[in-house]
Amino acid sequence: MNFKDNFSYFKNNSQEIYFDSAATSIKFDKVIQAQSDYDLKIGANTHNNLFNNAYKANEMLNDTRIKIAKFIGIEDKNEIIFTSGTTHSLNQLAFGMRNYLKANDEILVTKLEHSSNLLPWMVLAQEEKLKLDYLELNENFLIDVSKIKNKVTKKTKVISFAMNSNTIAGLNDVKKIVKEIRKLNKNIIIVLDLAQSIKQNKISIKDLDVDCVAFSAHKIYGPFGLGILWARKEILEFLKPIFYGGGNNTSIGINNYKLAPIPEKFEAGTLNLSAIYAFNICLDVLEDLKIDKMIAYEEELKKYFRSKVKKIDHSKFEFYNLENDQPIVLFNLKNVNSQDFGAFLNKKYNISVRVGKHCSRLANELFKVSSTIRASFSIYNTKEDIDKFIEALKDCDNWVNEIL
Amino acid sequence: MNFKDNFSYFKNNSQEIYFDSAATSIKFDKVIQAQSDYDLKIGANTHNNLFNNAYKANEMLNDTRIKIAKFIGIEDKNEIIFTSGTTHSLNQLAFGMRNYLKANDEILVTKLEHSSNLLPWMVLAQEEKLKLDYLELNENFLIDVSKIKNKVTKKTKVISFAMNSNTIAGLNDVKKIVKEIRKLNKNIIIVLDLAQSIKQNKISIKDLDVDCVAFSAHKIYGPFGLGILWARKEILEFLKPIFYGGGNNTSIGINNYKLAPIPEKFEAGTLNLSAIYAFNICLDVLEDLKIDKMIAYEEELKKYFRSKVKKIDHSKFEFYNLENDQPIVLFNLKNVNSQDFGAFLNKKYNISVRVGKHCSRLANELFKVSSTIRASFSIYNTKEDIDKFIEALKDCDNWVNEIL
Repeated sequence: MNFKDNFSYFKNNSQEIYFDSAATSIKFDKVIQAQSDYDLKIGANTHNNLFNNAYKANEMLNDTRIKIAKFIGIEDKNEIIFTSGTTHSLNQLAFGMRNYLKANDEILVTKLEHSSNLLPWMVLAQEEKLKLDYLELNENFLIDVSKIKNKVTKKTKVISFAMNSNTIAGLNDVKKIVKEIRKLNKNIIIVLDLAQSIKQNKISIKDLDVDCVAFSAHKIYGPFGLGILWARKEILEFLKPIFYGGGNNTSIGINNYKLAPIPEKFEAGTLNLSAIYAFNICLDVLEDLKIDKMIAYEEELKKYFRSKVKKIDHSKFEFYNLENDQPIVLFNLKNVNSQDFGAFLNKKYNISVRVGKHCSRLANELFKVSSTIRASFSIYNTKEDIDKFIEALKDCDNWVNEIL
Repeated sequence: MNFKDNFSYFKNNSQEIYFDSAATSIKFDKVIQAQSDYDLKIGANTHNNLFNNAYKANEMLNDTRIKIAKFIGIEDKNEIIFTSGTTHSLNQLAFGMRNYLKANDEILVTKLEHSSNLLPWMVLAQEEKLKLDYLELNENFLIDVSKIKNKVTKKTKVISFAMNSNTIAGLNDVKKIVKEIRKLNKNIIIVLDLAQSIKQNKISIKDLDVDCVAFSAHKIYGPFGLGILWARKEILEFLKPIFYGGGNNTSIGINNYKLAPIPEKFEAGTLNLSAIYAFNICLDVLEDLKIDKMIAYEEELKKYFRSKVKKIDHSKFEFYNLENDQPIVLFNLKNVNSQDFGAFLNKKYNISVRVGKHCSRLANELFKVSSTIRASFSIYNTKEDIDKFIEALKDCDNWVNEIL
């Protein structure tokens, strides 16, 4: 079975070449079906075990936690927190540390971070008078392991970075980075943003030795509106919730309350239950299709693109990350507004790319362009899609005719 | 067309009498279909207009805001904020006021509030040294309008309450309450929790004259994982976001940022787009079925239950809210653990009720029982369901045989 056969979206959009998977994946048919199935067959809310479908709902919740724990290589399912997305997860982490961090404590990130792994820390730092600083990057925009020591001090409390960025960079060597950080200061909480990485890497948290991770279901062929937060139990114990409400407490008095134990402490309100069930099924499909093969397939597409583009006259283009194997091509047509050329790709070739700053506003300063075109590949893309993309690039002189 | 014909859930659960609509509604078939349709046909993320489906996604988002604004009777669609649920909406309101409220400012709620409209205010009050107090209720557990003046002072900054509770009470006279509050102190921000009320009342915010409302899609036949926050523009302008990330900013520097204008300021990260589209279609269905008729139908079920139950020997039961027309019956079998009798209803009669504190922990203290059984009716319930419920109540002496 071809990977693409799992996505009926492309029957409804048969002419489209979808190159925006870094923004959101197209969803597995089985995921879409499962989300409907929950509503059509189970329907019930959790927080109660009394009737049959409520019991099923709670079992489903528990089973999904177990599967996610296995998927990322951790042992305690109760360390898996359901959120509404990576953004929720990272804001929960940052603002949950409001009381843990003291004035003059230091937080380190990189300039390549997506806004959701940059702004929460920046805002927290401003509000709590902490110091926010940036790890140094090497010429490939990866964290420069040899220079970590220039930034880590006794006051460094949190370091948060993405395994790979949603724009220019390849894969950070997380194990090596973590080892270096631990050597310099063993008390630092290390947060790994997996939003972009979750579908492009087989994750073993035990192996990576980080303390917290965040990712979204919708970037790995799963449903919208669901994120995961994992953190070590000791961290979840002192972290303060950012949501309070039904289910996250065990008692309420006139002026006092007791919080529920983890994971419920962080899951106030009705969860996105149909999405949780859909993600449960998503994990089954990932296991069937084998994530190693999916990763290899995506990297193969990037390699194929690289080999093809080198054979054409590409001097009119600026490619910013051609040499890494991440399935993202970041580029511009020289002296042409990226919006204009992106629109050309869509109008004439039905190629869907994203244009702009890709929610990584500091990153674009790093590589000194205000806006870029991003083509991101995934398992439902084919070599024929890449061929068409190459054809479109060769046709670049005609963008004016098409747009004006 | 029968209301029930809109819900295929009952084909899959043909024996079940679902009386847990106050926890979550069964979803319209068209809602479930729409959520799938988004993933199967549009799929794209927003924050970009470049390609066809991304354009459709943005148009859909805009169109849904317009429909919601119309549905609740406000004019400016940009005051409609998409959240993950009522809990998110209310936490955003409370913690968004962290800088607006000063030590010794006063917040008023009621003891009948659901945890999500109680705990955020309590936690905020503790953290910011504010005073949290409770409006007085009358013998029907409604806000006692004549006693509001006992609690409102010059320091009162926020009053937050539910239009109707998820347990015992009928309908608060919001217009009268608001008028009284405004007379006493015109600077108070009045928050109305509509989680429970949205499907049981035709809402006109202009008419009610409140400043903020919160509700969830899943309690009005819509999808899981979607909430709405509305507040007057002046409030949204000073309110601080509780989520920061992609899309909620217009620039980021090394140590500074600019927030996006409303509504994007509060919508960091990828929204639950398939749910937003599903809710868009939900609003169409509500318009077709006519919400007035739906409300009347639900009230009719309560009246029918009341008339029927009065004809049987119900001395073995305690009914806490029989006399109001809200489609919720809160009760206990005297001297029997509510969990046990709830289980009996499910096991012998396939009646799905909820048992416990219903996330309103202070409320149960008010009416002096630690746990209750809640049967909540909705448009897919029928008089036959009520007849079966009555039959089950008449059979109460047999609960021991069934459970043990």
